[in-house]
Amino acid sequence: MKNMSNPSDTIKESPLFWPAKLKGTTLKVLDETQIPTKVAYVDVKTTGDAVKVIRQMKTRAFGQFLVVLNTFLLELRGSQALSDKALLLKLKKTAERLNNSRPTFPFSEVTSIVIHWANDAFEKRQDIREVVARNIEGYLKGIRYRRLDRINRIANLIQNGDSILTHCNVSGELAMASNIAIKQNKKIHFFATETRPYMQGSKLTSWELRRMGANVTLIADNAIGSVMSDGLVSKVIVGSDRSCANGDFANKIGTYQIAVLANEFKIPFYVLTQPSDKVKSGEDIPIEIRNAKELLMFYKKKIVSGVIKGFYPGFDVIPHELITESIPINVN
Amino acid sequence: MKNMSNPSDTIKESPLFWPAKLKGTTLKVLDETQIPTKVAYVDVKTTGDAVKVIRQMKTRAFGQFLVVLNTFLLELRGSQALSDKALLLKLKKTAERLNNSRPTFPFSEVTSIVIHWANDAFEKRQDIREVVARNIEGYLKGIRYRRLDRINRIANLIQNGDSILTHCNVSGELAMASNIAIKQNKKIHFFATETRPYMQGSKLTSWELRRMGANVTLIADNAIGSVMSDGLVSKVIVGSDRSCANGDFANKIGTYQIAVLANEFKIPFYVLTQPSDKVKSGEDIPIEIRNAKELLMFYKKKIVSGVIKGFYPGFDVIPHELITESIPINVN
Repeated sequence: MKNMSNPSDTIKESPLFWPAKLKGTTLKVLDETQIPTKVAYVDVKTTGDAVKVIRQMKTRAFGQFLVVLNTFLLELRGSQALSDKALLLKLKKTAERLNNSRPTFPFSEVTSIVIHWANDAFEKRQDIREVVARNIEGYLKGIRYRRLDRINRIANLIQNGDSILTHCNVSGELAMASNIAIKQNKKIHFFATETRPYMQGSKLTSWELRRMGANVTLIADNAIGSVMSDGLVSKVIVGSDRSCANGDFANKIGTYQIAVLANEFKIPFYVLTQPSDKVKSGEDIPIEIRNAKELLMFYKKKIVSGVIKGFYPGFDVIPHELITESIPINVN
Repeated sequence: MKNMSNPSDTIKESPLFWPAKLKGTTLKVLDETQIPTKVAYVDVKTTGDAVKVIRQMKTRAFGQFLVVLNTFLLELRGSQALSDKALLLKLKKTAERLNNSRPTFPFSEVTSIVIHWANDAFEKRQDIREVVARNIEGYLKGIRYRRLDRINRIANLIQNGDSILTHCNVSGELAMASNIAIKQNKKIHFFATETRPYMQGSKLTSWELRRMGANVTLIADNAIGSVMSDGLVSKVIVGSDRSCANGDFANKIGTYQIAVLANEFKIPFYVLTQPSDKVKSGEDIPIEIRNAKELLMFYKKKIVSGVIKGFYPGFDVIPHELITESIPINVN
């Protein structure tokens, strides 16, 4: 990692890009539920605090990943008196508690890496505290570098005159790329969809794009076909929650129909992909069916009458045929 | 009209089917803004009251049409002392006030018919009061008959095992047809879309379908592609706000993308059309761009941060190629 030049030197950072930062023995976690009203951080000092911010959904997506890794750093720093054996047990306990915090995010895929490092150091009679901390820090730096590198690639993809439609939220990357493109004197515009039911487009994406200096217009998810047929969209750029070996991916509900519409209008459709995991194709991705309450209530106000059922698949699957180009995080 | 048998004898009526009813000198207008919390009626006794319920959007679509015609009946009943000349002037004044109540609905198309009847009766030295009232009552009876007739045709279209997706609200007809189909022992299911931003699906359609005994599931507008690709939809049935001579039609924003998706999945797409008016094709329909406040606020709660723009086209246009079959109101 030492010889990597940092591509972030000139990039203005969005709070959603790196929403958890370690300051001494406190992890400052961005409270996304308060955006756009205010940018506030929750203090996480223990594994218990970490489980709480995850369960209360104060952080999500990439934020959960950061909270998990940093929680191990917190535990390592707060356990100077423990023997290596006791420390190893403590880390395993931490992993277990994090794994059980929420069902959707693949927490164990992240925690198992840390436990692997800890076991390995213990077997080799190395200083677990030092080895594991160094590995986590290096791992985070590498991911940061690769995400910043991708932001530069997205900025290069954006052309003068583009009107880009996006859905849900891609954790800072698109907004930061827009800031670079604007500095390159490209005149650009964004359509952010509301992204019902959770309204990530209204609450997060339109806010962070505007904050990065971009010209952004919010539209109802229902207006996507309309703005496309009026020739107002030149590109679609979305994120992905899970990618498959064959190029299919899963993302926030509604992404699939955007891909179909983009295809209908020959509008290029780009996706920022995660590294492909063991899933072969989209058919093998289990779709989380979320509690329908988010459809039936809105800010604690009941919208529908008593007996209405709701069906709320959280994600949908986009077949690779509908993708113009995947923009992966480079792992080399 | 006398020889028409009434097809309503066995049809259970939804409050949204005929949302304004004259009782003596009071027009009882369904307050749609209170649904689904309660079924309440606003008393309209004067043209001023009528303009108010229209401006406050307590009634919409077919309800506006009923309010306009019934307001003339109220004015006729409340003007026994006036000379024919004074009455004619009064009706013209009423027409003018109704025409200026809201910009979107083509009020003048309805009021001009009434004024034509009044002018004609005045020129022929007939009793304006009697002639105009009789014509309005006959006109309303004819429309009622034809709408009930269409409900029977929709019920016949619905087959055992159908899972029907609908968008926005079709003023009672689909819900009443579902009640007939259920009485015919057809097992059927509906998907009602939320229909952001105004939420007609959440507030009105899911409520009235359920009230008519139908099995209904509410979904986010974003989930349409997902339920279609999962094979959960056998038919789409929607209403139309405006029809063209070539078969194109305009309807609530989002209908267009539903038509594209239905076409993608070879799902039959039906539309209940208004009589074709003078508009040649969809390109000639002016699309109302509504105040973006409905995107930025929700039940008086601000969703987005201060500076975000919204774009809210109220309707979109569906080209006739995407329509499996139009179900018009028979005018014969």
